[in-house]
Amino acid sequence: MTDFNATRPLFSLPHGVTYLDGNSLGPLPVAAQDRMAACLRDEWGEMLITGWNKAGWMDQPRALGDRIGRLIGAAPGTTVVGDTLSIKVYQALASALELRPDRRVILSDSGNFPTDLYMAEGLVRSLDQGHRIETPAPEDVAAQIDAIGDDLAVLMLTEVDYRTGRRHDMPALIRAAHEVGALVIWDLAHSAGAFAVDVSDTDADFAVGCTYKYLNGGPGAPAFIYVAPRLADQVQPALSGWLGHDAPFAFDPDYRPGPGIDRMRVGTPPVLQMAALEAALDIWDQVDMDALRTRSVELCERFIEGVEATCPDLTLASPRDAAMRGSQVSFRFDHGYAAMQALIARGVIGDFRAPDIMRFGFTPLYIDEGDVDRAIATLADIMAHRLWDRPEYHARAAVT
Amino acid sequence: MTDFNATRPLFSLPHGVTYLDGNSLGPLPVAAQDRMAACLRDEWGEMLITGWNKAGWMDQPRALGDRIGRLIGAAPGTTVVGDTLSIKVYQALASALELRPDRRVILSDSGNFPTDLYMAEGLVRSLDQGHRIETPAPEDVAAQIDAIGDDLAVLMLTEVDYRTGRRHDMPALIRAAHEVGALVIWDLAHSAGAFAVDVSDTDADFAVGCTYKYLNGGPGAPAFIYVAPRLADQVQPALSGWLGHDAPFAFDPDYRPGPGIDRMRVGTPPVLQMAALEAALDIWDQVDMDALRTRSVELCERFIEGVEATCPDLTLASPRDAAMRGSQVSFRFDHGYAAMQALIARGVIGDFRAPDIMRFGFTPLYIDEGDVDRAIATLADIMAHRLWDRPEYHARAAVT
Repeated sequence: MTDFNATRPLFSLPHGVTYLDGNSLGPLPVAAQDRMAACLRDEWGEMLITGWNKAGWMDQPRALGDRIGRLIGAAPGTTVVGDTLSIKVYQALASALELRPDRRVILSDSGNFPTDLYMAEGLVRSLDQGHRIETPAPEDVAAQIDAIGDDLAVLMLTEVDYRTGRRHDMPALIRAAHEVGALVIWDLAHSAGAFAVDVSDTDADFAVGCTYKYLNGGPGAPAFIYVAPRLADQVQPALSGWLGHDAPFAFDPDYRPGPGIDRMRVGTPPVLQMAALEAALDIWDQVDMDALRTRSVELCERFIEGVEATCPDLTLASPRDAAMRGSQVSFRFDHGYAAMQALIARGVIGDFRAPDIMRFGFTPLYIDEGDVDRAIATLADIMAHRLWDRPEYHARAAVT
Repeated sequence: MTDFNATRPLFSLPHGVTYLDGNSLGPLPVAAQDRMAACLRDEWGEMLITGWNKAGWMDQPRALGDRIGRLIGAAPGTTVVGDTLSIKVYQALASALELRPDRRVILSDSGNFPTDLYMAEGLVRSLDQGHRIETPAPEDVAAQIDAIGDDLAVLMLTEVDYRTGRRHDMPALIRAAHEVGALVIWDLAHSAGAFAVDVSDTDADFAVGCTYKYLNGGPGAPAFIYVAPRLADQVQPALSGWLGHDAPFAFDPDYRPGPGIDRMRVGTPPVLQMAALEAALDIWDQVDMDALRTRSVELCERFIEGVEATCPDLTLASPRDAAMRGSQVSFRFDHGYAAMQALIARGVIGDFRAPDIMRFGFTPLYIDEGDVDRAIATLADIMAHRLWDRPEYHARAAVT
């Protein structure tokens, strides 16, 4: 059983801040500072080029992949980190389409994060082979799988809706997709580190995710990709970079994919970002995912109850049933942008998604009941006194 | 005029080491340590999610791109950093092929770095539209442009051969390619920071490069891409990620490419890697590229002369004419791998490329005549006493 009082001091958070945006960017693990300083001074500085061997830089994408693998039910040797989530979505989708050459439909949903849909759009346009992307409402996906039937090449879903926190029933959807012969790409952006996931048990084909949200790997931390072992040696990488080659340092003129998940590597791995991620994963190595989920649900429920009791103008946008939610809670409010700015000005950091969603992430590693109660009280005060109406909260920043 | 005695102490190099592998991984800029510590403590740690605006993380890919732009003759707003060089090659090539839909040949050369060829191979296979890749010997490229003529879609070359240091006459090749209506992708991996480049004057269509070699951005530092302004708004990105969208934070369901070079952005930028790169570019801001080239040629010539005078078993693999060389010198020797290990054991770090190339990079920012003379003397000693014959120098490391 994880002691969440013990994990809290492992993060460096500004004094007086209640940080409910770890679902967008996790906070700084204290140990990342020393780890990074050592990576610069003792590895890059002292080992120079020999760091690729001596400091294990070249093996880090797999080593970190294996540690993430524990959190998502992936066996060692089936997950690798690198690139951005957009690139990993592209890799998975290009591979999946090649594995289903006679099928033309990519099924996602209207709640998927835009970059997943954009990458699919770019791939489809680039291939020019008549594929089409369907994006029904999230609750209609199951019916649509059956309707498309044997023209369905890939089901590509982000498990947790980034706006509402609505969670798909992935095991059921994976079964349904497999029944019609389709492959599944499971985007874990808001799942990995939010609750236990099991890509093996559910028999997912591909999973991708990012490490800068719940996993706390830092701004711009690399993404990860999982490929089911039964497929890993069949996949023909569209992004066939040298580090996915069977023998990268043989400098062969022709590409020959490496064994299994190695072929999903592309270019030179981001060593400094990986050093920060490593420190973040040191904390995750201690965490029991079931205990984490229990805490997450407690915190979310406490927040919903408190806000509904004190802020009648806010409407719950997330599912009321905890089993259908990720680790975030969203409320709708017409003046949500300004209300969020007012909250942030008072040290409670959540974020806003157009048109009217106020979003709050609950991350038991460093958030407790005191934070939840402070967030509720601050929000109640803003609503009671219409503080969101002040002009200073209406200027829009570039990144919301 | 740059004072190279003043730039030398700006790098942290281990005592007693002569580092002639900055063409593979540049050394640690001293200031990168404080910059990185501040990025972690004051930006990620204190600003958390607001760092995207407050610390300017979101604008960094363009700001750093503009600073690299000065070194390669690119106007502000035409270069952006992100991803790996492999990914940037793919982006440029996919875009170029779409701009020449009726042409089927990608011309490169047999000396190109394998990942460029691998990425092209993956794209061609994935598109399945009958493209083919030709890789003649470097000296035959010019003739081949004319022979292929109006079926040539793209000329894709790395200016400096990573093994021999042979340098293409890019202005002439670009003219020749344009005369047959082809586009040009210029890989600056061994050019940016090695000598002055002018992508504008030469009218290059696309340029790509990495920042961890001569630019000293650190292991895994991001790549960059330049698109000629006359093409930038025509390019349809195959890797259409959200940060290349016209309004990333509008979260539109459909992709709409951003203006100009912005559309070559893909996913979330690597903030920590960019912090290190920023410190590295602070040094480059002071450097006069013509002065750098003069120094580079002096150092290379001194090395060639010294080695040829003392090591008769080594054969120069680089062009003897400095105008045809990059900023590296390569020698062939049958026992080159072991000889290089013997050199490294004595504090002179170069590297080896199969089958027989000993490679030495000359980087005036931190290498001077003393280093060159020490390298010559050490190599001469190893050759005179056949120290390369010792068994301890024959074990192969994973990364060579």
